[in-house]
Amino acid sequence: MTDCIFCKIIEGKIPSIKVFENEKIIAFLDISPVNPGHVLVMPKKHFKNIFDVPEDLLCETVKISKKIASSLIKAKLAQGINIGINNELAAGQLVMHLHVHVMPRLENDGFKHWQGKAYPKDQAEKIADEIRKAL
Amino acid sequence: MTDCIFCKIIEGKIPSIKVFENEKIIAFLDISPVNPGHVLVMPKKHFKNIFDVPEDLLCETVKISKKIASSLIKAKLAQGINIGINNELAAGQLVMHLHVHVMPRLENDGFKHWQGKAYPKDQAEKIADEIRKAL
Repeated sequence: MTDCIFCKIIEGKIPSIKVFENEKIIAFLDISPVNPGHVLVMPKKHFKNIFDVPEDLLCETVKISKKIASSLIKAKLAQGINIGINNELAAGQLVMHLHVHVMPRLENDGFKHWQGKAYPKDQAEKIADEIRKAL
Repeated sequence: MTDCIFCKIIEGKIPSIKVFENEKIIAFLDISPVNPGHVLVMPKKHFKNIFDVPEDLLCETVKISKKIASSLIKAKLAQGINIGINNELAAGQLVMHLHVHVMPRLENDGFKHWQGKAYPKDQAEKIADEIRKAL
C-alpha cells in the first residue's frame, strides 16, 4: 500500500534491520524496543490487522514469531517473551499493517501488566452470552 | 496436569464461564478482565507456553482467538483488540498453561502501552546478528 511504512520497508524503500525473511513473512528489529531484541514479524502482503488477514497467513506469521521467541531465549537476550498484536487505533495499533510484537523480557525490567477487576454480580454471564451470540 | 488451575477448569473441576469449546480448544472469560469481554483461549492439552506447544496447536488457538476478537467487535464490546501471550514468569505468565489473552479495548479506556527507546549506535546490528545466529 502506497502510504504504509511497513510496505515501504518490505519493498526496501526504507531501511530496516532484518532478522528473518521468506517468501511470505518478514521480521525486523523494532527501532524503539521495549528491551533489546524486540522484533516485529509480519506478512509481506498488506493486511490491516487480525480482522482482515487470512487465517493461514496469520498462522504463518505466528509460527515465525514462535521461532523468533525461541531464538531470543537461546541468544540470552530474554528470560521470557511477550507476544502482542494490537488491532485498531483503540488498541494502540500505530501502523496499519498487521504485525506481531515479539518482546524480550527480563526479570525486574520494570514493565507492568494491566490490572483487571472482577465483574459486578451477574454481568459476566450476560457478557458471555453476547459473545456466544456474535460468534 | 494435577496442579494446573486451567487443566482443572478444562476438566470441569473448577467452574468457568465458557464462550467457545471444541475438541482441542476452550475459551472462557478472564475473571479479572481489563475490560468486560476479556477472554482466555487455550489448548485443552497442557503445554506450558509458546516454547513447548506444537506449531499446529498454536495455530488452532490463534485461529479461535481471531474469531473471538471479531465477535467482541460485532457484539460492540470493543473498538479494538489486543492479543497477548505471556511466556515465562519474567514475561508476566502467572498460570503455566499456554493461553492467549483476547482483550477488548475502548477509546480512552486509559490502558497505556510500554514505551520503547532507540538503540545506542551500532548496538542494533549486533543484536540482530545474535538473533540470526540463534534462529
